[in-house]
Amino acid sequence: MTARAAVIMAAGQGTRMKSPTPKVLHRVGGRTMLDRAIDAVQAAGCERVVVVCGTHSPAVAEHVRRRLGDDAVAIQNPPLGTAHAVLAAREALAGFDGEVLVTNADCPLLTADDLAPIFERLAAGDDLVMLAFEAADPALYGRMIQDADGRLLRIVEARDASPEEKTVKVCYSGMLGAAAGPLFDWLAKVDNDNVKSEYYITSIVGVANAAGKRVGVAFASETAVMGADDQAGVARAERFWQDRTRAALMAGGVSMVAPETVFLSWDTKIAGGAVLEPNIVFGPGVQVESGAVIRAFSHLEGAVVRGGAIVGPYARLRPGADIGEDAHIGNFVEVKNVTVGKGAKANHLAYLGDGSVGAKANIGAGTIFCNYDGFDKAKTHVGEGAFVGSNSSLVAPVSIGAGAYTGSGSVITQDVAPDALALERAPQVEKEGWAARFRAAKLARKQK
Amino acid sequence: MTARAAVIMAAGQGTRMKSPTPKVLHRVGGRTMLDRAIDAVQAAGCERVVVVCGTHSPAVAEHVRRRLGDDAVAIQNPPLGTAHAVLAAREALAGFDGEVLVTNADCPLLTADDLAPIFERLAAGDDLVMLAFEAADPALYGRMIQDADGRLLRIVEARDASPEEKTVKVCYSGMLGAAAGPLFDWLAKVDNDNVKSEYYITSIVGVANAAGKRVGVAFASETAVMGADDQAGVARAERFWQDRTRAALMAGGVSMVAPETVFLSWDTKIAGGAVLEPNIVFGPGVQVESGAVIRAFSHLEGAVVRGGAIVGPYARLRPGADIGEDAHIGNFVEVKNVTVGKGAKANHLAYLGDGSVGAKANIGAGTIFCNYDGFDKAKTHVGEGAFVGSNSSLVAPVSIGAGAYTGSGSVITQDVAPDALALERAPQVEKEGWAARFRAAKLARKQK
Amino acid sequence: MTARAAVIMAAGQGTRMKSPTPKVLHRVGGRTMLDRAIDAVQAAGCERVVVVCGTHSPAVAEHVRRRLGDDAVAIQNPPLGTAHAVLAAREALAGFDGEVLVTNADCPLLTADDLAPIFERLAAGDDLVMLAFEAADPALYGRMIQDADGRLLRIVEARDASPEEKTVKVCYSGMLGAAAGPLFDWLAKVDNDNVKSEYYITSIVGVANAAGKRVGVAFASETAVMGADDQAGVARAERFWQDRTRAALMAGGVSMVAPETVFLSWDTKIAGGAVLEPNIVFGPGVQVESGAVIRAFSHLEGAVVRGGAIVGPYARLRPGADIGEDAHIGNFVEVKNVTVGKGAKANHLAYLGDGSVGAKANIGAGTIFCNYDGFDKAKTHVGEGAFVGSNSSLVAPVSIGAGAYTGSGSVITQDVAPDALALERAPQVEKEGWAARFRAAKLARKQK
Repeated sequence: MTARAAVIMAAGQGTRMKSPTPKVLHRVGGRTMLDRAIDAVQAAGCERVVVVCGTHSPAVAEHVRRRLGDDAVAIQNPPLGTAHAVLAAREALAGFDGEVLVTNADCPLLTADDLAPIFERLAAGDDLVMLAFEAADPALYGRMIQDADGRLLRIVEARDASPEEKTVKVCYSGMLGAAAGPLFDWLAKVDNDNVKSEYYITSIVGVANAAGKRVGVAFASETAVMGADDQAGVARAERFWQDRTRAALMAGGVSMVAPETVFLSWDTKIAGGAVLEPNIVFGPGVQVESGAVIRAFSHLEGAVVRGGAIVGPYARLRPGADIGEDAHIGNFVEVKNVTVGKGAKANHLAYLGDGSVGAKANIGAGTIFCNYDGFDKAKTHVGEGAFVGSNSSLVAPVSIGAGAYTGSGSVITQDVAPDALALERAPQVEKEGWAARFRAAKLARKQK
Repeated sequence: MTARAAVIMAAGQGTRMKSPTPKVLHRVGGRTMLDRAIDAVQAAGCERVVVVCGTHSPAVAEHVRRRLGDDAVAIQNPPLGTAHAVLAAREALAGFDGEVLVTNADCPLLTADDLAPIFERLAAGDDLVMLAFEAADPALYGRMIQDADGRLLRIVEARDASPEEKTVKVCYSGMLGAAAGPLFDWLAKVDNDNVKSEYYITSIVGVANAAGKRVGVAFASETAVMGADDQAGVARAERFWQDRTRAALMAGGVSMVAPETVFLSWDTKIAGGAVLEPNIVFGPGVQVESGAVIRAFSHLEGAVVRGGAIVGPYARLRPGADIGEDAHIGNFVEVKNVTVGKGAKANHLAYLGDGSVGAKANIGAGTIFCNYDGFDKAKTHVGEGAFVGSNSSLVAPVSIGAGAYTGSGSVITQDVAPDALALERAPQVEKEGWAARFRAAKLARKQK
Repeated sequence: MTARAAVIMAAGQGTRMKSPTPKVLHRVGGRTMLDRAIDAVQAAGCERVVVVCGTHSPAVAEHVRRRLGDDAVAIQNPPLGTAHAVLAAREALAGFDGEVLVTNADCPLLTADDLAPIFERLAAGDDLVMLAFEAADPALYGRMIQDADGRLLRIVEARDASPEEKTVKVCYSGMLGAAAGPLFDWLAKVDNDNVKSEYYITSIVGVANAAGKRVGVAFASETAVMGADDQAGVARAERFWQDRTRAALMAGGVSMVAPETVFLSWDTKIAGGAVLEPNIVFGPGVQVESGAVIRAFSHLEGAVVRGGAIVGPYARLRPGADIGEDAHIGNFVEVKNVTVGKGAKANHLAYLGDGSVGAKANIGAGTIFCNYDGFDKAKTHVGEGAFVGSNSSLVAPVSIGAGAYTGSGSVITQDVAPDALALERAPQVEKEGWAARFRAAKLARKQK
């Protein structure tokens, strides 16, 4: 296979987002649009990726450096148009002689499958391939004017289009593909002889045609190339992505009472045979096995839920929560960095942070793993079959032995032996009639 | 009235569900599709119900046996087509000489009202009545070819339909009605002379017509006979059902800020004059009286909420929760099997399990009814006007007398007399400067 | 500018609501429809507002009195039609000689902008201006019959309309404007010569035309004048209002993962650069600054969230919660009437009610501010950098000094000095083998 590289355009200002966060770092399905663009071209076989960044948002270049290294950043400065932006990647790709894909960082629904037709057209002999979509309402998009054989003659901006050209529904997505050498040569010949004095990427069509090259058109769906330029656009893309991902999970056998209320992340893994009640939010890094049930109003991030486990309603699983087979995590329970054994239960109002809960152990309502002293975190281990009484405070580091009990309301600071009972409690004292006197005094004062 | 029986077809494999749960045991509005089918035919007056089950899903037959007894189960083995499936019920209905309805177990929106036209046509003299719907997009449905008088000539599979037949929008729902005797006789004459060598229920039309019988058509809406064959289909049915049920509640005077976020169960009862905020999930068995307010993010199952009570936000009511008039159950409070008296309050972070709370009692934040010792459950009773201090642990069995107080953070293991104060507490000790020294030591260690 | 007054029609019975709450006191965006109507006419420049109330719902008149005073209430008794209703306001506006707007109290989407065209037409010389909308489906609305110059000839009830008149899509909204003097004079001349013997407001057109006056038409969108007559209608208006308000926030730079799951109130203020996860409910009086993040399943009322703060998931902020810069309020935490300092944290299962938390203080999981003794509320102050151990009960009034620690599970009833450690705890006791014996005894009993 010919070597492939990608140039991702991420230099736009994104002022319509009206946000301190740069446009391409806004997220869809919990993943930045920029990372999605990189994912798509990598999945399409591009071993080298160059992201063209502007100077206005250093966070974008920094994000690219962290993921792909310094070589993946090209800076466009000053911004002189889209053709100029791609040309900014020329140096970073010096010596590369395979095929280059040019894509946008703000098309969060784009996948490798949507890009494949570009490579197919190149393989079929086109020298330059412009990616098109059929627009339901072409409005302001550039129209692609093809000859009878489908070869692309030119791309006309909406404002310059004749009435006849305006009826064309084939519009330009902003993406293209060509061999590296000619691509950059053609780009270098694009002029800025227009009202805004900008170098437009669409002008490359004329340059390539003038050189007698074959300019072809590949097609993607309008959804696939849908851009997100403002907050509403990002939200719309999120909705498309969620719907698509929900449908894929249901097709794989996941039961959802109300799919429109389940919010997934880009890497959520849920096996067929799992059941999801309404109103669940999956942050990144969650895996749910077949036969698990996630009940309403649950929130999961970085967690594993194994078969037969029941989580929620109102369960909060945080990174490192590993909920074992047939275990139950109930309402208002938070689990972080704790392995919960098979058949163990923590059903009510508890915080389990850092440690482990053995199989069949029972964590009483109101239990807190006191894992933090203001400086360091420490671990709590509850043994198999142990019974932690309600409202217990387990002060880490501490271990409750297998089969041990702790009395309700106890603060446990020392390890408890297996099968023992640990208690921390003062004697119960009763003051007869105190409440009656207290009430009388309060009421007397109020009447004054 | 002529006696009525129903044969419910539940023998399909349901492989498209891709779930360990058999298709017809998937739920809509919290009730299995199979039970919904039984509910519908029973409401339509069918005293006898036979469910035709396959051998692949013993859970289906078991489900029928538990609800309707052994006589209600007919096994189709091997599966030789839909006519063959109905015929499998012949023995179970031996001796029955009334009218038989044949319906599908996977049409969860079907109601008795939708079936009534079948009986009306039978009463009007039709010998066999096939239930039709007008399809917005007939696509793959069988077309019903009628003569000028509306009598049904035949049902043509989509793939066998002529271009003219394809324009017919009257499609077959899979359901029908006829007198028991002729029905089974006709079914026995259906042949399997087709590509798949299956006995199709649609062939009964030809048999009846050949016998000179009058074959009529009754109509239901497309929604009413909408089948659910995969997870997305179940979710779609759920949405229709929820929307219909929400609309019915609103028509009865229930206020809903955002009806699309309220999830109801098949038996949810909410009186006009109740107010529902967004994001509420009703499991089975809930009753809400007029004047009650259910606030956002609440989850109710098997509970009663009486007039003037305010529940939520984030209240979890479980079976046996009976929230009295003007009582308040607030955020992160779970109530299970507890009767809460008039005007009582449990507003914050509490678990009330098994017992009772008297009128005007106040349950402090963080209170836990410690109802379980690992083996048995016991009860907690809080008397009228009692005040349970915050973070109390009430270890059942235990009673707090009327008007009594318990001190914050106390573990109450013995009954408290009316109007008394009960305390379980050690003296407060202060270690001067300890925190400063602790911090300094921690920081020193970190700097190493 | 000519003086302006408004007559708001609120005398309808609203029986279709089927609710003990009067129709116009139902809420959209957390504000009663009546208040919305008053807001709209006040924003349109009406200094005087008269609300016409019926005798059936004293709560409506009472609501008006509380907001606008006695002079703002006019009672229509008995109800003899819409013209008669407006005439009921004549006395309250005696002496007023400016322009009068007549609007409906049950059109919750109406804004001042929608009313402006009425005043424009009056300024342009029309004597009477009837507010129209173009109906997608005119159905039962009254058709407005105009002459070639656009002057209004008459309004025809749907049932009286000729086939040609039925094709008219310009329908009457129920609202109008005119100078006070002539308006009431014309109304007084409206007759009730019709089947129901009612005085219809639409008849004013004929009276004015007969007097040789110029009757004009102003236009609003169908949405703007959409009435809400039943619960479903209120819910529909809520949805429109929420969508409009969400869109406005996004246009201002607020990021919303799932805008359709965020519920706003009429006065919610969220700055661009704030981020909202799915499933958030904003009650009245909330302000969120740029850079704040509100996580899923949070519920806020009367609260301020400052820049960099992270709230939720499952955070409940109640009136008086002021969450400082970079502070964190985590899951199952309720904050009411507490100022939380910069960088302070209360991340798990806590109730902070009445008081303050200093900068960088850390509130342990399960902490309760015990602010109520059954009669009075008192305050808890936690100093800067203090560390409140998990499951602490802070019994107000009480202060924890800056930098102090409290031990886990302690009930703190006395002030704690800065940098000290306060503890309330009994010694931990261990009963060896107790659990094993307990278990054996329980199992033996169960086997009997």
